[in-house]
Amino acid sequence: MTPTSTSTGMTNGTTAPTTPAYDELTRRNERAWRLEHLGSIAGWDQAANMPPKGNEARAAALAELGSLLHGLATDPLLPELLDRAEQEPLDPLQRANLREMRRDWVANNALPGGLVEQRTLATARCEHAWRTQRPANDWAGFVENLRPVVRIAREEAICLSQATGLAPYDALIDRFEPGMRATELARLFGDLRGWLPDLIARVRERQAGETVLRPTGPFDRAAQKALGEAAMRLLDFDFDAGRLDESTHPFSGGVPEDVRLTTRYLDDDLQQALYGVIHETGHARYEQSLPRSLLGQPVARARSFGIHESQSLSFEMQLGMHPGFIGLLVPLIEQHFGHQAAFAPANLARLLTRVHPGFIRVDADELTYPAHVMLRFEIEQALIGGEIEVEDIPTLWDQKMAAYLGVDTRGNFRDGAMQDVHWPSGAFGYFPCYTLGAMYAAQWFAAMRRATPDLDARIAAGDLAPVFGWLREHIWLPASRWPTPELALRASGEPLNPAHYRAHLERRYLG
Amino acid sequence: MTPTSTSTGMTNGTTAPTTPAYDELTRRNERAWRLEHLGSIAGWDQAANMPPKGNEARAAALAELGSLLHGLATDPLLPELLDRAEQEPLDPLQRANLREMRRDWVANNALPGGLVEQRTLATARCEHAWRTQRPANDWAGFVENLRPVVRIAREEAICLSQATGLAPYDALIDRFEPGMRATELARLFGDLRGWLPDLIARVRERQAGETVLRPTGPFDRAAQKALGEAAMRLLDFDFDAGRLDESTHPFSGGVPEDVRLTTRYLDDDLQQALYGVIHETGHARYEQSLPRSLLGQPVARARSFGIHESQSLSFEMQLGMHPGFIGLLVPLIEQHFGHQAAFAPANLARLLTRVHPGFIRVDADELTYPAHVMLRFEIEQALIGGEIEVEDIPTLWDQKMAAYLGVDTRGNFRDGAMQDVHWPSGAFGYFPCYTLGAMYAAQWFAAMRRATPDLDARIAAGDLAPVFGWLREHIWLPASRWPTPELALRASGEPLNPAHYRAHLERRYLG
Ligand SMILES: [Zn+2]
Ligand SMILES: [Zn+2]
Repeated sequence: MTPTSTSTGMTNGTTAPTTPAYDELTRRNERAWRLEHLGSIAGWDQAANMPPKGNEARAAALAELGSLLHGLATDPLLPELLDRAEQEPLDPLQRANLREMRRDWVANNALPGGLVEQRTLATARCEHAWRTQRPANDWAGFVENLRPVVRIAREEAICLSQATGLAPYDALIDRFEPGMRATELARLFGDLRGWLPDLIARVRERQAGETVLRPTGPFDRAAQKALGEAAMRLLDFDFDAGRLDESTHPFSGGVPEDVRLTTRYLDDDLQQALYGVIHETGHARYEQSLPRSLLGQPVARARSFGIHESQSLSFEMQLGMHPGFIGLLVPLIEQHFGHQAAFAPANLARLLTRVHPGFIRVDADELTYPAHVMLRFEIEQALIGGEIEVEDIPTLWDQKMAAYLGVDTRGNFRDGAMQDVHWPSGAFGYFPCYTLGAMYAAQWFAAMRRATPDLDARIAAGDLAPVFGWLREHIWLPASRWPTPELALRASGEPLNPAHYRAHLERRYLG
Repeated sequence: MTPTSTSTGMTNGTTAPTTPAYDELTRRNERAWRLEHLGSIAGWDQAANMPPKGNEARAAALAELGSLLHGLATDPLLPELLDRAEQEPLDPLQRANLREMRRDWVANNALPGGLVEQRTLATARCEHAWRTQRPANDWAGFVENLRPVVRIAREEAICLSQATGLAPYDALIDRFEPGMRATELARLFGDLRGWLPDLIARVRERQAGETVLRPTGPFDRAAQKALGEAAMRLLDFDFDAGRLDESTHPFSGGVPEDVRLTTRYLDDDLQQALYGVIHETGHARYEQSLPRSLLGQPVARARSFGIHESQSLSFEMQLGMHPGFIGLLVPLIEQHFGHQAAFAPANLARLLTRVHPGFIRVDADELTYPAHVMLRFEIEQALIGGEIEVEDIPTLWDQKMAAYLGVDTRGNFRDGAMQDVHWPSGAFGYFPCYTLGAMYAAQWFAAMRRATPDLDARIAAGDLAPVFGWLREHIWLPASRWPTPELALRASGEPLNPAHYRAHLERRYLG
C-alpha cells in the first residue's frame, strides 16, 4: 500500500534525488496518511462498536491524533519545501500532487490560531445545545449560539479569501468542492429554480391518482442485513476490502483498502436500510477503486464532496431506482422475504419515485431533495455575505418552503432551520455538494448512454459492467488528478450542465 | 479519562508549579497513552474485523504509530527531565510514577539502534519462515534462523544488564516480570521439579479407572457466544466498557475503558470457547478495574505479565474449575444447550480436571502445563547463558519431556521446540510468567480463604463478591503502585510461595 517513489517516476537509490524537497513532502504526506488510517478505523469503531464508557478515552485519543496531524500540517518548514519543490523537475503527476499539497497547506494555515480556537468553542457550544434545543423547538435559545458561529464563519471566509484570492463565500465552498464558485452555483440553482417547483407540482398531480402498495413488515434484521450484502455483491463491492456493520447514522468510513459501511435497520421498512446500503456502496466503490498503486499520494484521494456524492447518487438514484435495476433487486428481496404483491417491479418503482414534499431534507425524495438544498444555499450565501442576520432565517425559510414545496413551516423551527447539524457545526458551503452530486450523477449517466447506447437494456439484463467501467475510467481512477471542473470536462465532454439533471428527472417522473 | 494533575496532588493554576519536570513528563506520558489507545483498537480490529486486503495498510499504519511512540520514548530530553524530577518535591504516588517512567526509559533506551534493527530483521525472518517450517517439521531450516535470534538476544541481555545492573538473563525476565530474578525462578521451579512429576503420575493412576462423559455436539456458535456472555455477566464483566468478539487467536485487547475480548468457537467442543472466555474475562476485569481516576499514569497500568496471568488463571483455574462455580455454570449451559448427562456438575468437574500429558503447551491441562513451562525456562536460561547452543535444544527437549511428562518427542520438532512463537520472536524470559501466574493465583486464593473462611460455600452459593472484592483491593486498584514483590507481600502477607500452588493442586487432584 505504501506508494513507492518509483511509481511516480522519481529517481531513488544510488544516485542523489533531483527532487529533494518534493521527496521530503511526499514522505511527510505518507506519514500523515498512515496515521490518519488509525483515526479512520477508530472513528468507525466509535460509531459501530464502542460501548458507552469508551467514549471519553476515545474522544481524547482522537483529539490527540488530530492535534498531532495539525502539527504536521502547520510545520513552519512547509512553505519553503513547497516553494523549493515548485522549482524541481517534476513530472505531471508529481505536479498534481504538489498542487494538492499546496491546497492542503493553504486550508490548514489560512486561519490564525485564535480563530481556530474560537471556532472550536463556538461550534461545540452551539452543537451541544442544539441537541436539546431542537427537540424543544427553542429557536430563541439556538439563535444566541448560532450568531457567534456565523460571525466566526464570516471571519473565516475573509481569512480564507485572503489566502486563496477567492471571494469569501467561494473560499468556504472551495473547502468542500474545489473549483466550485458561488456564481456558478447561482447559475445552477437559478436554472433549477426556474423549473423545479413547477415540475414537482406536475408530478404530484400526475401521481395523485396512482395506487401504490407498501410492503408489509416486520422485516427481520438479520435478513435485511443479508439482503443488503446481496445488493452490495450485485454492485461489485469487494468484501475482501471492506464490510457492512450497523450504526445510528449510516456512513461509509474506514480507508480505501478497507472500507467500512454502516446502515441501520427499521423493523417495518425495507427501503431505508436497503437504499441506504446502495447509497453507501457508491461511496465505498469510489474509495475501493481509487488508484491502488498511488494510494497515500494526494492525487489518489477522492476528488471532493460533490464528486463523492455523485458516486453514491449514481448508485442510489441513477442505477438504484432504474426500472431495470429494480428488476434485478426483486429476486433478491423475495429470496430473503418471500413473495408480496408490493414487490412487483412496477409497484416498487412507483413506491421509490413517490413524491411527497415534506419538512425534512434527509427524508426527502429524489425530486424534492434539491429544493431543500437550494433554499439552504440561498440563505447561507446571504448570511455569509452579511445581507441577512440569523434572526432573518425563519422568515426566509418559511417563504422559500412555501414557494418551492408548498409546505407551511411557520413556528416549526425544529423541522425548519434547526433540522441540520451543518450550520451549528460551522460547515457553511457544504449543502450545495448534495445537489452538485445529483447533477453530476445525471451528467455521468448521460455520458454513459452516449458511450453505451443500449445501457438501459444492459442494466435490465444484469450487465452492470458498462456502468462500473465508465465510472472507473472517468471518476475512480482519475481521483484527484485534475481539479473538479477539469475532471467533469474530461469525463463528460462538458462542464457541469444541469440540463442532464432536468432531463433525467423529467424522463423518470413524467416519461 | 484524562488524568488531571490535581488527582495526584500537584499544584496547578495561578501559582507556578513546583514540579515542572515531573509535570512535563506527565504530559508526555499522557500523550503517548492517548496515541497507544488508537494502536490498541486498531490492533483488536485487525484480529477481529479486518478483511484480508486491509492488512498491508494496517501494518504500515501501526508501524508508523510504533515509530512515533518510539520517538517519544527516546527523546534525548528525557534523561534530564527524569533527573530533574527526582529532585522535585513529589508525593509517594508521584514517586511511584517517576520510578515507572524511569523503568520505561531504560527499557526503551538500553539498546543501540543498530541492535534494535538487527532484532527486528532477525525475528521477522525467523517468525515468517517458522510459519511454514513448523508444519514441515523442518528443524534444520528453523535452526539457521533461530541462531541469529539467540545471538541478538544474548547481546540484548548484555545491553539491558549494563543499563539495569541486573544479570543478563534477569534483565530479559525483568522486561516481562519486573523484580523477578532467575535465582528466584530457579528456587520456584526447583521446588516444582521436586513434586510435580510425581504428582502427575499419582493423579494419572487415580484417574485411570474414572468414567467421564463428554458433552455431545454440535454446539451452535451463536448459542456458544450467548453462553460466553452469560458467563461474563456471572463474572461481573462490564458490558458498558467492553465487548466479546471472535478471532483466530483469543486475546484480551482494547483499552481499560473499553476492553475487547475475543474467543473462537469449535462446533464439537464447548469447553474451549467457554473457558477461553472465562480466562480472558480475568484479564479483562483487571483492566476494567484499574484505578479509573489515575488512568494514563504509569502507576495505573497493570503490573506485569505474571500478575496479569494470575488474574486470568484466578478466573479460569481457581474460580472457573471450582466445583461450586461449576455448579453455577451448569444452569447457564443447560439454558443454552438443553440437558445432557455429561452436564452434571460432578462429571463436568471430572472432565475439566482430566490429566493428559501431551506435546502441546497451549492444549495442556492445569496439572501438566507447568511442566511445559519449567522445561522452557531451563532451556532458555542455558541458551542465554551460553551453556548450550540452539543445536542442543532437541536432545534436552526430549530428555525433559520424557522425565517430566513421560512422552516421547524424538524427531517431532513440530510438536516440540518449534511449537511456540516466543523464541522465534525473541521473547526470552516470557515463558516463566505463565507459571508465575498460576502460583500467584493459588496464593491469592489462599489469602482470600484466610480473609473469608467460608469462601468455598460462598462461591457455591453464587456469591462471588468476596473473590472480586479481594482482587479489587489487593491487585486491581494497587495496579503498578508497587514493584511486583512488594505487591505480592502486601496482598498476601508473604513473598511468592509455591507451597500454595502445590496445596491447591494436591487438594484438587488428590483431595
Ligand atoms: Zn452520501
Ligand atoms: Zn492469559
